[in-house]
Amino acid sequence: MVGFIIITHGDFGRQLVKAAQIILGEQKEIWALSLHEDDGLDTLSERIAKILKKGNERSEGKIIFVDIFGGTPANASLKFVNDEKVEIISGVNLPMLIAGINYRRSLTLKQLARLIRRKGEESILDVKQKFLDRVSKAKDK
Amino acid sequence: MVGFIIITHGDFGRQLVKAAQIILGEQKEIWALSLHEDDGLDTLSERIAKILKKGNERSEGKIIFVDIFGGTPANASLKFVNDEKVEIISGVNLPMLIAGINYRRSLTLKQLARLIRRKGEESILDVKQKFLDRVSKAKDK
Repeated sequence: MVGFIIITHGDFGRQLVKAAQIILGEQKEIWALSLHEDDGLDTLSERIAKILKKGNERSEGKIIFVDIFGGTPANASLKFVNDEKVEIISGVNLPMLIAGINYRRSLTLKQLARLIRRKGEESILDVKQKFLDRVSKAKDK
Repeated sequence: MVGFIIITHGDFGRQLVKAAQIILGEQKEIWALSLHEDDGLDTLSERIAKILKKGNERSEGKIIFVDIFGGTPANASLKFVNDEKVEIISGVNLPMLIAGINYRRSLTLKQLARLIRRKGEESILDVKQKFLDRVSKAKDK
């Protein structure tokens, strides 16, 4: 199973994990790290390194989700850019985390990272338009 | 200025707004609504309706950001699908909110919603690949 680390400015990563668990129930091998004002890049990198060590021999690897490319959480995770057992994805949202949880037992690390990115892109929708399309399709039937 | 309402399962919308404010400073006309276990669809719709009424005559309209298409926050917002002054976008993440804040004084409601969706899609990146591409470009120079 692929493990997940969610790293964000402030506590929204932690709450994002909670939201996924409201929908899918309790999950293992998910860690959330919050960047607070007094945290430096090195402190954060050390905290990531500690989590990466957990159960690495039996795991498929880990995906680090960060909030925004170029932010401190993303930059701290770049320390692990040469680790073959780590993938890093920016722009984390709820559908990405849910897709990740649903497929992390059945895909390789790289396959899973690709799927999560695609699901993330597809999750950003014009909800009004999508709804009206569905209504008009239903009428056509 | 376009107002924003962020609606999510649990409290991550509220924390997402805080994260944006860590980066951009305090912001006005942003509301976060949390869906908790005992909240029904109608209760949530009523809470949205109350916010939509705020300052509507002088505003460009409002964008409702929801966590996931098909979830209760998204479904509750569909009650306002025929309101011309409302846009609804699913899959909210930090880069979308930041782009929204940065452009909400200069674009119309529809332009802004389009820009936010595009920025959201573009924010979901293979961070390792993106970083290695940059390094190799820098070497070529």
